[in-house]
Amino acid sequence: MKRKVTVGMIGTGRIGRLHIHNLLKHPQVHLKAIADIAIDGSEPWVQALGIPVITRDAFEIMKDPEIEAIFICSSTDTHTDMIQAAARAGKHIFCEKPISFDIAKTQNALQVVNENGVKFQLGFNRRFDPHFRRVKEIVEEGAIGEPHIIKITSRDPSPPSHDYIKVSGGLFMDMAIHDFDMARYLSGSEVEEVYVQGAVLVDPRIGELGDIDTAIITLRFRNGALGVIDNSRQAAYGYDQRVEVFGSKGQVNVQNDFPNSAELSTIKGVTRDNPKHFFLERYEKAYSIEIESFIDALIDDKQVPVRGEDGYQAELIARAAQRSWIEKRPVKLSEYATASE
Amino acid sequence: MKRKVTVGMIGTGRIGRLHIHNLLKHPQVHLKAIADIAIDGSEPWVQALGIPVITRDAFEIMKDPEIEAIFICSSTDTHTDMIQAAARAGKHIFCEKPISFDIAKTQNALQVVNENGVKFQLGFNRRFDPHFRRVKEIVEEGAIGEPHIIKITSRDPSPPSHDYIKVSGGLFMDMAIHDFDMARYLSGSEVEEVYVQGAVLVDPRIGELGDIDTAIITLRFRNGALGVIDNSRQAAYGYDQRVEVFGSKGQVNVQNDFPNSAELSTIKGVTRDNPKHFFLERYEKAYSIEIESFIDALIDDKQVPVRGEDGYQAELIARAAQRSWIEKRPVKLSEYATASE
Amino acid sequence: MKRKVTVGMIGTGRIGRLHIHNLLKHPQVHLKAIADIAIDGSEPWVQALGIPVITRDAFEIMKDPEIEAIFICSSTDTHTDMIQAAARAGKHIFCEKPISFDIAKTQNALQVVNENGVKFQLGFNRRFDPHFRRVKEIVEEGAIGEPHIIKITSRDPSPPSHDYIKVSGGLFMDMAIHDFDMARYLSGSEVEEVYVQGAVLVDPRIGELGDIDTAIITLRFRNGALGVIDNSRQAAYGYDQRVEVFGSKGQVNVQNDFPNSAELSTIKGVTRDNPKHFFLERYEKAYSIEIESFIDALIDDKQVPVRGEDGYQAELIARAAQRSWIEKRPVKLSEYATASE
Amino acid sequence: MKRKVTVGMIGTGRIGRLHIHNLLKHPQVHLKAIADIAIDGSEPWVQALGIPVITRDAFEIMKDPEIEAIFICSSTDTHTDMIQAAARAGKHIFCEKPISFDIAKTQNALQVVNENGVKFQLGFNRRFDPHFRRVKEIVEEGAIGEPHIIKITSRDPSPPSHDYIKVSGGLFMDMAIHDFDMARYLSGSEVEEVYVQGAVLVDPRIGELGDIDTAIITLRFRNGALGVIDNSRQAAYGYDQRVEVFGSKGQVNVQNDFPNSAELSTIKGVTRDNPKHFFLERYEKAYSIEIESFIDALIDDKQVPVRGEDGYQAELIARAAQRSWIEKRPVKLSEYATASE
Repeated sequence: MKRKVTVGMIGTGRIGRLHIHNLLKHPQVHLKAIADIAIDGSEPWVQALGIPVITRDAFEIMKDPEIEAIFICSSTDTHTDMIQAAARAGKHIFCEKPISFDIAKTQNALQVVNENGVKFQLGFNRRFDPHFRRVKEIVEEGAIGEPHIIKITSRDPSPPSHDYIKVSGGLFMDMAIHDFDMARYLSGSEVEEVYVQGAVLVDPRIGELGDIDTAIITLRFRNGALGVIDNSRQAAYGYDQRVEVFGSKGQVNVQNDFPNSAELSTIKGVTRDNPKHFFLERYEKAYSIEIESFIDALIDDKQVPVRGEDGYQAELIARAAQRSWIEKRPVKLSEYATASE
Repeated sequence: MKRKVTVGMIGTGRIGRLHIHNLLKHPQVHLKAIADIAIDGSEPWVQALGIPVITRDAFEIMKDPEIEAIFICSSTDTHTDMIQAAARAGKHIFCEKPISFDIAKTQNALQVVNENGVKFQLGFNRRFDPHFRRVKEIVEEGAIGEPHIIKITSRDPSPPSHDYIKVSGGLFMDMAIHDFDMARYLSGSEVEEVYVQGAVLVDPRIGELGDIDTAIITLRFRNGALGVIDNSRQAAYGYDQRVEVFGSKGQVNVQNDFPNSAELSTIKGVTRDNPKHFFLERYEKAYSIEIESFIDALIDDKQVPVRGEDGYQAELIARAAQRSWIEKRPVKLSEYATASE
Repeated sequence: MKRKVTVGMIGTGRIGRLHIHNLLKHPQVHLKAIADIAIDGSEPWVQALGIPVITRDAFEIMKDPEIEAIFICSSTDTHTDMIQAAARAGKHIFCEKPISFDIAKTQNALQVVNENGVKFQLGFNRRFDPHFRRVKEIVEEGAIGEPHIIKITSRDPSPPSHDYIKVSGGLFMDMAIHDFDMARYLSGSEVEEVYVQGAVLVDPRIGELGDIDTAIITLRFRNGALGVIDNSRQAAYGYDQRVEVFGSKGQVNVQNDFPNSAELSTIKGVTRDNPKHFFLERYEKAYSIEIESFIDALIDDKQVPVRGEDGYQAELIARAAQRSWIEKRPVKLSEYATASE
Repeated sequence: MKRKVTVGMIGTGRIGRLHIHNLLKHPQVHLKAIADIAIDGSEPWVQALGIPVITRDAFEIMKDPEIEAIFICSSTDTHTDMIQAAARAGKHIFCEKPISFDIAKTQNALQVVNENGVKFQLGFNRRFDPHFRRVKEIVEEGAIGEPHIIKITSRDPSPPSHDYIKVSGGLFMDMAIHDFDMARYLSGSEVEEVYVQGAVLVDPRIGELGDIDTAIITLRFRNGALGVIDNSRQAAYGYDQRVEVFGSKGQVNVQNDFPNSAELSTIKGVTRDNPKHFFLERYEKAYSIEIESFIDALIDDKQVPVRGEDGYQAELIARAAQRSWIEKRPVKLSEYATASE
C-alpha cells in the first residue's frame, strides 16, 4: 500500500473546485484544509465536502505541519506571494497557470522554490490529455522524423466576461499561454522568435479594453522548426483544440474530442454532435491525470512532469507576443535576455 | 443533500471488483459489506478497500438490516437463489446478466422479486454507453423515422478460456445476450423470430465443447423491423462494438470508441491506434452511469432503467437462437409461449 | 500504338447510353453501330453522337463483319437470344446483368458462348469500383487472414417505378444480384446456403406486386465463412454501398463515397453532404474501368475479368434467396444441382 | 447542339499535355494545332494525338484565322510575349500561372488583353476542385458568418529538381501562388499585408540556390480577416492540400482526397492508404472542369471564372512575401502601390 499525502487547497473558484473534486476521489490523498478569502464554512456545498479545516487565511494552511503539499488556485496576482510562503514553509506546490504576469516576479518566486528544495508543478493540464500525449509519444518515437511545422488550433467557445478580460493579462498571457506550452512540449525545443497578427473580430468591447480576440501567432524554434497558433475567443460550435506536427518523415495530428460518435444521415445530409463543449468536459481526464502525476511525484520522490521553468518560458513567449502585436514586428526572445538571467 | 444508500456486494470476481470500485467512489453510497465464497479478509487488496464487513457467507449480508440494496455478481448458477433470498429479505437488487440459464428459474426468481416489491436492475451496462444512448435518443426523437433495420456488430478481442466456455451457457447466453438486449433497446420492440447461421472458425476446441465462436443472427421484430447481429469471439484489432439503425427517414450509427484520435501519416500510409481494447475500457463510463442510475432509482424511488423483464426477454431470445442453430431453422419466440406463462 | 476495336451497341436505355458515352471517349474503340427497337435516327441526341449506323434491327449489327464486339444492354428478356446470335456470329460479348431470369436459359446461352469460343463479360460494374477493389486486394494479400464474415450494405436511394418492379425479376434478381456477386468476389468462395428474412416496409404496393423492399440475407460459403447482406429499396440519404470483410487477422471495410469532404461546424452541430446520390455518380469510374477492362481483354486476347459463370452463380443465389423467402427456411444451392448440370 | 470552339496549344510539357488530353475529350472542342519549340511531329506520341497542325512556331498558330482560343502552357518567361501576340491576333487566351515573374510585365500584358477585348483565363485550377468549391459555396451562403481566419495547408510530395528550382521564381511565385489565390477566393477579400517565417529544412541545396522549402505565411485581409498558409516542398505521405475557413458562426474545412476509403484494422492498428499522390490525381477533375468553364465562357460569351486581375493580385502577394522573407518584417501590399497603378 502506498502512503497518503496530506494536502491543502488555496482558492475555491472554478478551477479550485475542480481540483478539490479530483483530490477527494484520489485514494492516496487526504485533503485536510481549504482556504479562500471569501469562503463561508456554513454553506452546504462546503459542508458537503467533509473537509476538516475551512479557513479564509491561506497562511493557516502554510503553518500546518501535517500538510505536505499546497495547491495554489487563487487569483493570479496572489500566486508569487503564496508560492514563496509555501516554499519557505517547506511545502510542495501545485500552482495554476500563469505563475504571474511579471517575469521578474515569476523568476523570484521560482528562485525561492529552488532554494527551499520543494517540488513545484505548474497547471498546464493539456500535457495530460490522452490525445496530445499520444502525439508527443509519436513525435518522440521519431515516427515523423525531424519536426518542421507545429500547428495548434485553440479556440474558446465564447469570450469570458469583460470584467475578467480586464484582469486576465490579455489573450497571450491568459489563453495562448497554454498553446505556447503545447508548442514547446510538442517541438521539444525553445522558442526563439514570435510574430503576431491579431484582430478584434468577435467583440469590439474587447478591443476597447486593450485586448484582441483573434490571433495568428508564428513561432520560430531554436531547433529550426516553425510553429503557428491560431486563436479565437469564440468558436460557435464549441471548444476547438487540435494540434498537428509535420516533419521530415510524416505528420501526426489529433482532432477534437466528441461526446459520442453517433452520425445521423437523413435527406438533409450527415450530422453529428459538436465537440465537447469546454475545458471541463474536454480535459476532464487530463485534470485527473495531472493530479495523479503530481501525487505520484511526491510519493515516489520523482521529478514533476511540468516544472517552474516551463511556466517561465511560456510567460516569456507571451510577453514577446504582446510586444510583437504592439510593435507590429517579429520579436526575438533574446530581447529579454537580461531579464531572464 | 441527498441521503446515502447502504449496500452489500456478493461476488468479488472481475465484474464484482469493477462495481466495488465504482461504489466506493459514489458520494451517496456506503458499501458496508462484501461476500465471496473464497474471500480472505487478511489479503492486502481486501484490507485496502476499508470495507467494514468481509464475509464468505452471502446470507450474512442479507440479514443485515442496515443494508438496503444488494449487488449480485457471483457466478450465474447462484443468481436465482441469491435473488430470492435478497427479495425475501426486502433488499433492492442489482444483478449481473444473465439472471440464469433456465427460463423457468428466471421466471420464478422474478416472481419472488415482484411479490416482495423490491427494485431489481439487471446489468445490461451497454444501455448506459454514451454512444449507444445517443443512438437511442436520435431514434426516439423520430429523426430516422420508423426503424426498418437494426444492425449490431459485437466481437470480443479474444475468446475466454476453455474452462469458462464450458460453464458460460454458450455464445448466445454469454455474449450475444448483450446484443439481444441492445436490439430490443434500439428497436423499441420485442423479438418475434430468430435465425442463426453459426460456425467454428476461431478455435476448433470451442466446437468440441459444443459451442460456436462466430455467428450471424437474424431477428424479426414484432413491429415489423428486421435485425442482424454478427458475433465473433476473436477480433484481432480489439473490442468491436458498433450499431446502426436504419429507418424510413434516415440512418444513425456509432463507430468504435478509440483511446485517442491521433492519426499518423507517413510514406507507409495513414495509421491510428486500435479501438479501446476491451469492455473495461470501452464501457468504463457506462459502468459508472449504470451504478449511478441504480442508486438514483433507490434514492428517488423511481423505476430502474433495466428491469427483470428485460433480462427474461433476452434469455428467451438466447434460447430461441440456440434452438435455431441446433435445428437449422428460424425459431419463433412463441414456441416458448407455455414456458413464458 | 494499340489497335482499335470496332463495336456495336444493342439497347440505348439508361445503361446503354452510359456505355455509349464511355465507348465514345475510349481511344481504342470505334463505336460503329447502335441498335434499339425504338430508336429514331433523326433525333438530335442520336445525331449528336455521330455514330455511322443507327438501326432498329439488332441483327444488322450481328451481320456486320467489321464489328468485333457487341454490347447487349437491351431488356433482360432479350439477353439470351442476343447472346446466342452474337456468339454464333463470332462476336465477343459484353452483357448487362442478369443474363436472364431463367437458369436453364442462362446455361444454354453460356453453352453457345463456349461452343463459339467468343469472350463474354458480364456487367457486374461494382467489381471495378476503386473502393471495393482495394478491399479485394487487401483480402487477397492475406492482411485479414482467413475471411470469417462478409458484410454488405446495399440500399437504393428510392424504389423504381411499379411498372419496373413488375418486370424486374424481384429484389433478389434485380438488386441483390450485385451483392451476391460482390459476396462471391470478396469471399473468394461459392455460396452454399442462403436464408432470407424479408419485409415490405417502404411501400405496401411493392408487396401487392409480390415483391419485398427490405431484406436481411444470410449466406454460408463453401470455405466456411458466413455472409450477410442488408438491402432496402429506399435510403432517404442516398445510395448506401458499403462492405466489410472480417477475418482471423483483422477487418477491412469501405465507407460510402462522398461528392466532397467539406465539413461544416456551427452551433447546430457538424454536418457534411450526403454520399453520392446514385449509381451513375457512385460508379462513374467503375463503369469506365469496366469498359477499359473488356477492351483490353479483346486487344490483348486475355481472360475477361467477370465471366458468364459469375453471372450464372449470382442468378443461382438469387433463385435460392427467392425460395428461402417463400418457404421461410434456409435453402442450399445444392437443391439446384440437377439444374446446374 | 452547341457550336465547337477551335483551339491551339502552345507548350507540350507536363501541364500542356494534361490540357491536350482534356481538350481532346471535350465534345465542343476542336484542337487544331499544337506548338512547342522542341516538338518532333514524327514521334509516335505526337502522331497518336491526331492533331492536324504540329509546329515549332507558336506564331503560326496565332496567325490561323480558324483558331479562336489559345492555351499558353509554355515556360513562364515566354508568357507575356505570347499573351500580347495572341491578344493582338484577337484570340481568347487560357494561360498557365504565373503570368510572369515581373509585375510590370504582367501589367503590360493584361493591358494589351484589355485593349483587344479578348477573354483571358488564368490556370488557377484549384478553384475548380469540388472540395474547395463546396467550401466557397458554404462561405458564400453565410453558413459560417463573417470569415475570421483562413487556413491553408499546401505541401508537395517532393521538391522539384534543382534545375527547376533555379528558374521557378522561388517557393512564393511557383508554389504558394496557388495558395495566395485560394486565400483571396475563400476570403472574398484582397490581401493587405504579408509576413513570412521561412526555413530550409528539406534540402540544404535549395537554400544554396537562394530559395526556401518550408514556410508559414501570415496574411491580413482588407476585410479584417486573418490568414495563414503553411507550405513544405516535401510531405512524405503525399500531396497535402487542406483548407479551413473559420468565422463568426462556425467553421468549414476539407480534408485530403483519398484514392479509396478502405480501412484495415489488424493487431497493429488501423490503417488506410495515403491521400492521392500529386496534383495530376488530386486535381484531375478540377483540370477537366477548368477547361469546360473556359470553353463555356467562350461559347456563351460569359465572364471567365479566373481573370487576369486574379493572377496579378496573386503575383503581388508573392512579391510581398518574398520581400517579407528577405527583410524579416511584415510587408504591406500598398508598398507596391506605384507599381500597380
